[in-house]
Amino acid sequence: MESGGTNVLLDLIHQPEDLKRFTTEQLEQVAEETRQFLVEKLSVTGGHLAPNLGVVELTIALHYLFDSPKDKFIFDVGHQSYVHKILTGRKDQFDTLRKYKGLCGFIKRSESEHDVWEAGHSSTSLSAAMGMAMARDLKGEHNRVIAMIGDGALTGGMALEALNHIGHEKRNLMVILNDNEMSIAPNVGALHNYLGRIRSDRHYVKAKEEVEHLLKKIPAIGGTLAKTAERLKDTFKYLVVPGIWFEELGFTYLGPVDGHNLPLLLETLKQADKIIGPVLVHVITTKGKGYAPAEADSHTWHGGGPYKIESGKMLKSAGPPMYTEVFGNTLIELAKQDQRIVAVTPAMPGGSGLLKFADAFPDRMFDVGIAEQHAATFSAGLAAEGFKPVFAVYSTFLQRAYDQVVHDICRANLNVAFAIDRAGFVGPDGETHQGVYDIAFLRSIPNMTLMMPKDENELRHMLKTAVDYNDGPIAVRYPRINGLGVPMDEPLKAIPIGTWEVLHQGSDAVILAVGPMIPIALEAAEQLAKEGVSVRVVNARFIKPMDESMLLQLAKEDIPVITLEEGAQMGGFGSGVLEYYSSQGVYGMRIKMIGVPDYFVEHGSIPEQRQEVGLTAERLVSELQALVPRKRQRA
Amino acid sequence: MESGGTNVLLDLIHQPEDLKRFTTEQLEQVAEETRQFLVEKLSVTGGHLAPNLGVVELTIALHYLFDSPKDKFIFDVGHQSYVHKILTGRKDQFDTLRKYKGLCGFIKRSESEHDVWEAGHSSTSLSAAMGMAMARDLKGEHNRVIAMIGDGALTGGMALEALNHIGHEKRNLMVILNDNEMSIAPNVGALHNYLGRIRSDRHYVKAKEEVEHLLKKIPAIGGTLAKTAERLKDTFKYLVVPGIWFEELGFTYLGPVDGHNLPLLLETLKQADKIIGPVLVHVITTKGKGYAPAEADSHTWHGGGPYKIESGKMLKSAGPPMYTEVFGNTLIELAKQDQRIVAVTPAMPGGSGLLKFADAFPDRMFDVGIAEQHAATFSAGLAAEGFKPVFAVYSTFLQRAYDQVVHDICRANLNVAFAIDRAGFVGPDGETHQGVYDIAFLRSIPNMTLMMPKDENELRHMLKTAVDYNDGPIAVRYPRINGLGVPMDEPLKAIPIGTWEVLHQGSDAVILAVGPMIPIALEAAEQLAKEGVSVRVVNARFIKPMDESMLLQLAKEDIPVITLEEGAQMGGFGSGVLEYYSSQGVYGMRIKMIGVPDYFVEHGSIPEQRQEVGLTAERLVSELQALVPRKRQRA
Repeated sequence: MESGGTNVLLDLIHQPEDLKRFTTEQLEQVAEETRQFLVEKLSVTGGHLAPNLGVVELTIALHYLFDSPKDKFIFDVGHQSYVHKILTGRKDQFDTLRKYKGLCGFIKRSESEHDVWEAGHSSTSLSAAMGMAMARDLKGEHNRVIAMIGDGALTGGMALEALNHIGHEKRNLMVILNDNEMSIAPNVGALHNYLGRIRSDRHYVKAKEEVEHLLKKIPAIGGTLAKTAERLKDTFKYLVVPGIWFEELGFTYLGPVDGHNLPLLLETLKQADKIIGPVLVHVITTKGKGYAPAEADSHTWHGGGPYKIESGKMLKSAGPPMYTEVFGNTLIELAKQDQRIVAVTPAMPGGSGLLKFADAFPDRMFDVGIAEQHAATFSAGLAAEGFKPVFAVYSTFLQRAYDQVVHDICRANLNVAFAIDRAGFVGPDGETHQGVYDIAFLRSIPNMTLMMPKDENELRHMLKTAVDYNDGPIAVRYPRINGLGVPMDEPLKAIPIGTWEVLHQGSDAVILAVGPMIPIALEAAEQLAKEGVSVRVVNARFIKPMDESMLLQLAKEDIPVITLEEGAQMGGFGSGVLEYYSSQGVYGMRIKMIGVPDYFVEHGSIPEQRQEVGLTAERLVSELQALVPRKRQRA
Repeated sequence: MESGGTNVLLDLIHQPEDLKRFTTEQLEQVAEETRQFLVEKLSVTGGHLAPNLGVVELTIALHYLFDSPKDKFIFDVGHQSYVHKILTGRKDQFDTLRKYKGLCGFIKRSESEHDVWEAGHSSTSLSAAMGMAMARDLKGEHNRVIAMIGDGALTGGMALEALNHIGHEKRNLMVILNDNEMSIAPNVGALHNYLGRIRSDRHYVKAKEEVEHLLKKIPAIGGTLAKTAERLKDTFKYLVVPGIWFEELGFTYLGPVDGHNLPLLLETLKQADKIIGPVLVHVITTKGKGYAPAEADSHTWHGGGPYKIESGKMLKSAGPPMYTEVFGNTLIELAKQDQRIVAVTPAMPGGSGLLKFADAFPDRMFDVGIAEQHAATFSAGLAAEGFKPVFAVYSTFLQRAYDQVVHDICRANLNVAFAIDRAGFVGPDGETHQGVYDIAFLRSIPNMTLMMPKDENELRHMLKTAVDYNDGPIAVRYPRINGLGVPMDEPLKAIPIGTWEVLHQGSDAVILAVGPMIPIALEAAEQLAKEGVSVRVVNARFIKPMDESMLLQLAKEDIPVITLEEGAQMGGFGSGVLEYYSSQGVYGMRIKMIGVPDYFVEHGSIPEQRQEVGLTAERLVSELQALVPRKRQRA
């Protein structure tokens, strides 16, 4: 691929209509220009390069053949929608991709009338498509509803629930299975194996002709045997069409088709369009197609930061190790000591920092695919038999397993440890991925213990705490940021449950700070010290249970309190502090809660997101100034 | 079936071992005696009669052939575990079934070593089984792991996620598909249709022989045609074995087998036991088998109260209509006026009071099967296209769709209305079904509006409020009890969002009460009035947003406040009140929160459950006496 080329045809496209006057050859040139555009733009902004390079022809074909927005294009997850954005008038905004107030990295209804379904989490497209198809039929309209879903997302339970409903309802609905043999990580599961068998035998269509020829040779027969022969003929399709699993669910299956062969793709989609009822088009694509480094390592290139185009080298940001990495390393250390420890991940072995663990303990590492619900209850089953599963999951994806956490783990009080990554703001992935609800949704579940460390070293000790804890479920949440670069101390020691620690002495006010809010609290305390206001900073490392003796001590002092957390303020940690005092009949404490306000915070950098909602030292200083009586402040 | 018979053989069984010395004929007698026992006992206690009558032979066969508790028997949901309880030493406790401190209606680990996996919600058994099988293999042990799952539960997303993982891992694991052609309601979905096709053609085995005979007649051929013929032979299994859908996922499929033919069942299970890797045994059972009224109407007899054995007449409790029924009737009334209204239920058309709606508007009623996640996002899809879906769901099952509520509905701010039934304590179903978390988990989600009515008449107006509301998601929650018998007023009117109402004047203290707690609050207020303590009672009908002007007014009065809700106290309504005052810088309010404490409340009657946790007028009186300064109390 050459860089720096001009977008001769791409520059002519401002809306999908503009695409329709091109010849197939010209469409192929559009594909080439689109690839070049993506590789160039994303080398600066970062983003989901490989998934988008994989669907260039597919997206062009859809917009060429069909009529968005009248026809509904529903992208599962939505991180593969860049080509769609380019073709629907947003090409010139790509310099702002995933940046604060810039172009969203996923589908966004507010950006374009062509964006009809928002996501960020996996496996929702089929349910949405079924809803839109039903709405169309109820209104007596005739638009197409087309969902594009990856092979990884297909294993998510809700996608399977939707297949079951779609197959039953028999409405006109097209599902495009974008099969790149790999979701974010190498795909797992029986369904994946099944798709693999299909892919490995692309001569099915030829076989069909042969079988028909063969069957003609069967001598004429009568009686029940004839009936059987009839059945045999009826079920030819099942022999010669590879998609029987989908056919049995009520779909017409077409494919597999090469997703980078534009003429073939156009032909197949035209054929699919003629079919009455639900149709599944199985398209084989290559992640990273057309950009050699991404083709060679589509895992690394799934999503990421800026890179050098020629060398394909990612520009790494310097700094201490990410919390994620510290988690992975520590788990290896712990697993060497404790045979009960096993790791469970729903399709995020890399993102969760478990690749080294998988190398070290291949038999004790379970990647169950995109299946958070199963991952949680599978962990519960392991725990019921004496193991200590560590369920590594992003905060936002743990939402998918909420019921399993309540019903299968906490209710049964099983010893499952949760390693909740990406807790708090997540930056450029934005509102679909913010890890700001887990405190609120976990805190109200009985038997749950919830921690967050002040730094990467404390994370290690919290993991030790979690695996040693045998009184039920326990969770440690940590952010998607670099550690503070603190020294690591040995040996690993369990932290007494429900204890906090004072990090900075002070007598005029107290900040009860959680996790990465602690440096902000310390900064504010230091600033205020210059003004003569003495602020205590507490590492509220146990969100549940809280350090009740320390809370009672604060009540005795009658000291103003600020609670500070990077999580939804409603029902969060601060709320727990208020509840505790109310339960003890302690009234009159001056408590100010600072957390994430009650709206969805969009994409940007984490500092920008914190700035937007006021999780800053400046805000703290001003709140403390308001909270501390004047007499205690030096004039 | 005769009643009053003696349990000649059943009385000899105190543990599964006792079963093993019986002949097949004697086992059949055990089955007969078990049926009689169940019909008699449940006629007094109520319970899940039909599901248990369906699995009598199956449960006997499992305990006869295999070795619980060394072998792990995992019952999906667990409401079909009565026979298991009888055979494992709990026969004499059946008089206490589902009663307070009595025998649990589901599997309960604390009851017996034979109860290895607890549930109550559907579709968890396969994940648990996979966890236990993996634990066994990691430990190098050799016990069996056997999961029994219904055809309804199989469509739940997490069960499908588990099938995908089990098929991939190829561990020894037996899945018994208990196919009664019906879950709680008539089953729906493509998978159900698929099973139906299998059931309708039970001559597959015979067909297999015929096909083999037929194939021998094919003339000898060479070249690619021979290869095709070979493929044809390889795939015979797919033609003649009905379970290809499961086979493709990596299971060996056996069946379908008549689940009431004990000799055949024993033979099939023995065969299944010899198979290496995952095996699925498809067992056809009849819900209610052996008791004519239950066989004739297994829907009504799925679960219920006491009945007369001879007539099969349910003993109905008198009283005003249940909230559920008022919901169903009101929705019909509203749907006549508003074409946008459609109803969505995850397999609970009866339980949710939607049967009449389904009759009135068959095209606007969507039962999607046990698939809460899909139901939520399917609703979102309908809402995105301008419809007003009313997603009727039990509080406890809405937990399954938590992520979809956050990510697909609230984040996109779509106009989905939630009718949350069984909110609060649910009585005999106990801890797996308590609807006490929805306030906590819904309140912290941005854009959500949450209501609870004081009586069944207000429920009607809240439904009107919900369907008229076009600014995003809105939910009304209501309890599993009879209404208060209040008059219904016309016309239906939307209630202004975020407004509360004072139901009882008072100046010494205020109770902010939610839903069915209001009568309790009024009772306490009346009692205290006699002591000269004047208590105001407020119908806090909007849990979110709250009536801020009323809250500010209370602050001005500096009046003690009790918040009262039948929901988890952590993160609940009371917590919201505390948060509001904190956010306004109002410190010093004397606020006492009363709700459900931080543990799982077991089965019993709703009044017993309320008594246990202190949701009573007596408790309120004593709390108010403590809260109101002495000077205000008459000596």
